[in-house]
Amino acid sequence: MAKKIKILNIAGSPVYIGQSALEELRYNLNTIFASKETFFILVDENTDKHCYPQLVAIVPQIEKAYKIVVPSGEENKTLTTCEQVWNQMAVAGANRKSLLINLGGGMISDLGGFAASVYHRGMQYVNIPTSLMSMIDASIGGKTGVDLYSLKNQIGLFAPPAAVYIWPSFLATLPHRQLLSGYAEMMKHALIADADFWRKLISMPMAVISNWDDYILEAIRIKSDIVNRDPYEEGERRLLNFGHTLGHAFETYSLRNDKSAITHGEAVAMGMICEAYISYRVAGLSHTGRDELVKHLLLNFNHYKIPVEAIDELVEITNYDKKNRKGHAMMTLLRDIGQAVEGQQIEPAMIRESLFRYTNFSESAQ
Amino acid sequence: MAKKIKILNIAGSPVYIGQSALEELRYNLNTIFASKETFFILVDENTDKHCYPQLVAIVPQIEKAYKIVVPSGEENKTLTTCEQVWNQMAVAGANRKSLLINLGGGMISDLGGFAASVYHRGMQYVNIPTSLMSMIDASIGGKTGVDLYSLKNQIGLFAPPAAVYIWPSFLATLPHRQLLSGYAEMMKHALIADADFWRKLISMPMAVISNWDDYILEAIRIKSDIVNRDPYEEGERRLLNFGHTLGHAFETYSLRNDKSAITHGEAVAMGMICEAYISYRVAGLSHTGRDELVKHLLLNFNHYKIPVEAIDELVEITNYDKKNRKGHAMMTLLRDIGQAVEGQQIEPAMIRESLFRYTNFSESAQ
Repeated sequence: MAKKIKILNIAGSPVYIGQSALEELRYNLNTIFASKETFFILVDENTDKHCYPQLVAIVPQIEKAYKIVVPSGEENKTLTTCEQVWNQMAVAGANRKSLLINLGGGMISDLGGFAASVYHRGMQYVNIPTSLMSMIDASIGGKTGVDLYSLKNQIGLFAPPAAVYIWPSFLATLPHRQLLSGYAEMMKHALIADADFWRKLISMPMAVISNWDDYILEAIRIKSDIVNRDPYEEGERRLLNFGHTLGHAFETYSLRNDKSAITHGEAVAMGMICEAYISYRVAGLSHTGRDELVKHLLLNFNHYKIPVEAIDELVEITNYDKKNRKGHAMMTLLRDIGQAVEGQQIEPAMIRESLFRYTNFSESAQ
Repeated sequence: MAKKIKILNIAGSPVYIGQSALEELRYNLNTIFASKETFFILVDENTDKHCYPQLVAIVPQIEKAYKIVVPSGEENKTLTTCEQVWNQMAVAGANRKSLLINLGGGMISDLGGFAASVYHRGMQYVNIPTSLMSMIDASIGGKTGVDLYSLKNQIGLFAPPAAVYIWPSFLATLPHRQLLSGYAEMMKHALIADADFWRKLISMPMAVISNWDDYILEAIRIKSDIVNRDPYEEGERRLLNFGHTLGHAFETYSLRNDKSAITHGEAVAMGMICEAYISYRVAGLSHTGRDELVKHLLLNFNHYKIPVEAIDELVEITNYDKKNRKGHAMMTLLRDIGQAVEGQQIEPAMIRESLFRYTNFSESAQ
């Protein structure tokens, strides 16, 4: 029987995708990682409960790794959590020749990747993404980081994982809302680079998809092509930021103000709605294109309601965006469905306009 | 008049050394750094008071930089201080296109280099060392980091400065004890690689040296040769660690137990005494060589007294050393004065023996 696995090279890291991905890890632990002195595995309470046992069943060596459990949720992607990880690694004798295995969603790979890369001036790590969002986005490409107070990913670095193992069966452990969060990033990948993939996505509701392997591979290929041409985000890689300027603002706002914050994907979905409006106003996206995008996003995602008074705070948050230049937001916008353009300098007034439009959205979209 | 400046390239960074170094910075700010959007300068209370005014007098553009003042002293080289720096940078609008100027000793360049390198996944920084120790060691070579609790430099990365400006006149601002701290590193540079330089150093007391420029250049050349052959410390660069396994242990011990901690250089001096003993026992250093080393160190440095009960704690601290492999301390030892060997695996029992010997030192050395 042929091995059900695809191997891509993304920004210097081998990425194994498919039903045999964990067998590849089992093999690698005895070969390329055999010289590592100690092994650590980073999980949150959820992946500890739902994913760790499945991983151990296929990769028995994992039982020998020192397990570090951190609280789940984006609100714990902080320096404080990092310190807890570093402290446990220090006490358990981790050093530059240890390996950290990140088992979880984007929060785990972002935080674990950062924690490892600056521990003893750099220990290696691998990612085993368990959420759709991290499979197609967060776990690949080498971006690591944590939040500073409520500012997203302010502290971190580009540090490629030694390998990434994507085993789609983990998706069965995900709550619907988390699957949906990843689906937003998948839609974004399609919108910026592949109109055919977009048509495929909108041809059926997410709940009906069964062959996730194909969808994941298609989404990763889009990211991979972009990241390999621009690993350090000096140009083209910024295309992947579509929906993220406003998306990060919604996410930060929600972390500050809501008892239960919205997910990253929900925030990005709302960000894409706003940025589609800006794309329509200044970047050539047609009225029809914009409406199609908004319609299909709102078929899958609830409209996140904000009061008009929140607009000032949201605009203020975009002032701290890492992508800003000389006080202006630098955004990625759509020229058309499947075609994006990066480096668009947008005035706060236009961001404000898109948010006013957004607050009235459910009414005016009828 | 010829420009009094030497330029070396160390691990990818240009290093300007001499009386015109700050004029070079003034020029660079209008040329290679002209595209930076905002400038930040990191100082501690001491360099703010004693060095900042001298810097501004020669480099007037510095006045436009946003100044961040942190408390001085190794005990503040922590993540908590980093967070204060990041917070101020965020509030003042720093981004990836900003430049951080580190004005201070090793604590400032270690902490500032780390803070900049992981801010927004990497902003550039330059070092202006103001202490002898940082001029010949900490500010060059790209090692950055902060302490984790009392463990030295546990969190950090290799991130070369965009440039280093060494202006020896800053030494006039230093208290004698700080000058001495750097002198210990200078002695170490000589001991591991240059017997002639060692003879020159021991030919007169430190207090008599007036032509510091020459001494600094000689010490930097030794470090430069080693670092350029092995920038990421995969082998030869470990030579620079002579005296540092026990040195870091003394430093950590003192931070934990003394009201006023010993300096890094004092700790390294005591570390070299212990490691010279181990070198004599297992690496071929002659009895005469060892005695000469100990004699000249104790001519310049007070013997740091520890109770016999402290030995357990010191041995325990060496267990957390970043350089360890499979539970053994990996040390750099001397074969002879001016000739070192790295990667020596040393048992805890031998470390303990050297410390017992050390505690009795002032008596038995007579």
